[in-house]
Amino acid sequence: MSEKLEQLKKNLGEVSDINHAASVLSWDQQVSIPPKGHEARGQQLATLGKLAHERATTDEIGKLIDELKTEFAGADPASDEAAMIRVASRNYDKATRVPSEFVAEQAVVSSKAFEAWGEAREKSDFSIFQPHLEKVVELTKKYVSFFPPADHPYDTLLDDYEPGMKTAEVKEIFDNLRPKQVELIKAISAAKQVDADFLFTKYDEKKMNDFGVDVITKYGYDWSRGRQDKALHPFETTFSVNDVRITTRFEEDNPTAMIFSTLHEAGHGMYEQGVNQSYERTPLESGTSLAVHESQSRMWENLVGRSLPFWEHFYPSFKETFSQQLDGVSVETFYKAINKVEPSLIRVNADEATYNLHVMLRLELEIAMVEGSVAIKDLPEVWNTKMEEYLGITPPNDAKGVLQDVHWSSGLLGYFSTYALGNLISAQLWEKINEDISGLDDQIRNGNFSELLEWLRKNIHQHGQKFEPQTLVEKVTGSRITSEPYVRYLTKKYSQIYGL
Amino acid sequence: MSEKLEQLKKNLGEVSDINHAASVLSWDQQVSIPPKGHEARGQQLATLGKLAHERATTDEIGKLIDELKTEFAGADPASDEAAMIRVASRNYDKATRVPSEFVAEQAVVSSKAFEAWGEAREKSDFSIFQPHLEKVVELTKKYVSFFPPADHPYDTLLDDYEPGMKTAEVKEIFDNLRPKQVELIKAISAAKQVDADFLFTKYDEKKMNDFGVDVITKYGYDWSRGRQDKALHPFETTFSVNDVRITTRFEEDNPTAMIFSTLHEAGHGMYEQGVNQSYERTPLESGTSLAVHESQSRMWENLVGRSLPFWEHFYPSFKETFSQQLDGVSVETFYKAINKVEPSLIRVNADEATYNLHVMLRLELEIAMVEGSVAIKDLPEVWNTKMEEYLGITPPNDAKGVLQDVHWSSGLLGYFSTYALGNLISAQLWEKINEDISGLDDQIRNGNFSELLEWLRKNIHQHGQKFEPQTLVEKVTGSRITSEPYVRYLTKKYSQIYGL
Repeated sequence: MSEKLEQLKKNLGEVSDINHAASVLSWDQQVSIPPKGHEARGQQLATLGKLAHERATTDEIGKLIDELKTEFAGADPASDEAAMIRVASRNYDKATRVPSEFVAEQAVVSSKAFEAWGEAREKSDFSIFQPHLEKVVELTKKYVSFFPPADHPYDTLLDDYEPGMKTAEVKEIFDNLRPKQVELIKAISAAKQVDADFLFTKYDEKKMNDFGVDVITKYGYDWSRGRQDKALHPFETTFSVNDVRITTRFEEDNPTAMIFSTLHEAGHGMYEQGVNQSYERTPLESGTSLAVHESQSRMWENLVGRSLPFWEHFYPSFKETFSQQLDGVSVETFYKAINKVEPSLIRVNADEATYNLHVMLRLELEIAMVEGSVAIKDLPEVWNTKMEEYLGITPPNDAKGVLQDVHWSSGLLGYFSTYALGNLISAQLWEKINEDISGLDDQIRNGNFSELLEWLRKNIHQHGQKFEPQTLVEKVTGSRITSEPYVRYLTKKYSQIYGL
Repeated sequence: MSEKLEQLKKNLGEVSDINHAASVLSWDQQVSIPPKGHEARGQQLATLGKLAHERATTDEIGKLIDELKTEFAGADPASDEAAMIRVASRNYDKATRVPSEFVAEQAVVSSKAFEAWGEAREKSDFSIFQPHLEKVVELTKKYVSFFPPADHPYDTLLDDYEPGMKTAEVKEIFDNLRPKQVELIKAISAAKQVDADFLFTKYDEKKMNDFGVDVITKYGYDWSRGRQDKALHPFETTFSVNDVRITTRFEEDNPTAMIFSTLHEAGHGMYEQGVNQSYERTPLESGTSLAVHESQSRMWENLVGRSLPFWEHFYPSFKETFSQQLDGVSVETFYKAINKVEPSLIRVNADEATYNLHVMLRLELEIAMVEGSVAIKDLPEVWNTKMEEYLGITPPNDAKGVLQDVHWSSGLLGYFSTYALGNLISAQLWEKINEDISGLDDQIRNGNFSELLEWLRKNIHQHGQKFEPQTLVEKVTGSRITSEPYVRYLTKKYSQIYGL
């Protein structure tokens, strides 16, 4: 193998190690840290961020990449080597535009903002979070300024999560989708409503947790290479292809949400566990984009986990566990209940028909924050107004409104639209999977997920970052990201449930 | 303040951050990691070790230290600044002698050795650990070779844990102590034995754990700046003065050992929590040596936690919790049982009268390994022979013999004697404390530990690494480390218990 490529991999392997170390520190901060440990942790993360950045932007790496581009000019663009050099070059270009000191400052600010967000959410008091968010947005604008002007400043942020995607492109996809989703919701509203009251009684947390663990074990989440803990906000994090962790949470007033959190994060986790082991510590490790990642989590959460075949398999044992709560509830009734469409406050608990509207709201607010057209102090009000406009409901407090998501506290602007794109990709893949696997519903009905996981391993997971998201989606499904399969999926599912 | 000192602190603050990040990764490896996560973790720790080492040994730091020595030549040697420069200089000298690549190699080897040790101990099969330990010892010898020849090669190792201490000096202290301890044990053997059978029945783990938590809460362990988890081997680790964690373990066949593990590690933890906050991220952070550290853990474990006044306070609630196991057992009987002297296999569970003999055995083996006078493959046999010679018992298997301690798997040679030195210091301090605090026994009998903790905070904890261990002990007690107070303490205690 090329000596220069070996040298590049050695250098970037160290960067990967530092970044993974930072991930361990962040995981610990969300799962285990004692209350007064946050300040030092912020400092430690700042130092690791600074170091990783310094190490990723050395002249040596720049020179190696340039030389490797020449050396591999004639190589198959679909080879691992060519992909590695391409991704390394992209990362290097991005990283060299941003000064080390800026990265360190951002880490300190984010750490404090995260802590303030936790307190603000607990007390449902946006004013605690406001000055921190102002600082986060200020730094975000400064970040954008390091890059060449794009069609829209938000493009620069979006591109970090969804390589190559443009704000205008996302808007177009969303503009196509929105009227169809709104139309569907209207039709559902006019139909006979389903009963879901039995979901919102008292359920035992431990038993609920155990059920989720049981399901993802059958899914194929590999516990020898992962674990699940409780956290304020559910997430997946990767320390190596052999250490991929997830978190979940229990909400007293929405107990079954814990299951879907677990299935969702396990979907992310199985993607990470399925990446080619030889990509470890190279630019090709991990999933290729947030939207593709989300397609995996949403598939295992919704297309599998909220399907009738799934519950035909799991419901008997679930009902036995919660015999009191589910007395007289048939599997069909349960299936309809967990798919009840109802405009609601919390994005992560939103049903499939309304979910994307939550995302569209956030995308608009983020664009407004970046443009400066909305003052941070006015966010709660704007949030509530838009919730009323899109979903017809107003949050009773900021904890259930503008403070519900962790993202902004961690400086993650540009991120949200990938959630909706992930939904679209999941349905696009699902159509293809059902062409390729005959009798998938029957397999699911028998609690057999191995052929599905194998398909995903082969077509999506193993590739890591080798293919850019649009390339991968097109390679697998024959078309770039489009909303049509998702609309077909929603229409079919809800027509059956609501007798439309 | 001196601009150069600020610059030095900035540089060393980053080194501290990297080292603390590595501590988080190690904690996670011992508390949380999934089985297949070890290899990548070893690599990550190796990279952090290498980075910390590179950052600690820059020419810039060397130059700053040299210039600061001149700048502060006339400063009060007892000032924080002078101490900081002194410790920084010592650390820099040590670190610059050891190449980065060596540190990285050692981290990889240790990580693999740690994993192998876990498996070897579980299967009680030394051969699984043997090749790893051989590599560890080989690297240890190479480490010694980076330093100027000392009176004995082991001096170099000892000095890392106990600044300034010589092998000959430790041997002398131990040679003074050994005959007196042996004599005491003989006298005890000849006396009427105490009953402790009721300690070795079935106790509930959760209740035992809760009791330990209760005690250290009363001790003053600050939970807002710490936490306790379960691990294979109990330990204390510091991520910052505001994040000091401990671990404990439950042994089915020795259930009350869990309490003393917890008290022991909390003793370490309270030392770390008590260091002057302004020393954070400077060379003066953390405890000053392992022996002084051990004096704190052993004091809270033994001098407090195995005393009659302590149990006069806690026994009523303890007995209520375990009413079945302790039916008819008076506090005096219980007190005698937990202080029963009996040559036993496991160091961490050894009584105060035999403990130091376990340490002496290890010190001799370590010296032999470093000298090369014992082959690693023969260690189990030599271990067992010495156990028979010193304590009159032979381990039934290696798990309860040569494989019981984690230290060698982590490359920690030179460490063990500090345990015995810590015992000596604890008794030395205890005599002084009882001069300074009148009615301490009564305070303990009332469950009041605040004056004791305050004394330790003021005289020991707050100073961090400002004073070298012998200096600190002399400053506080008026004498360098000596075994006499410990012998007085043991003799008085066991004369009462065994009616000698």
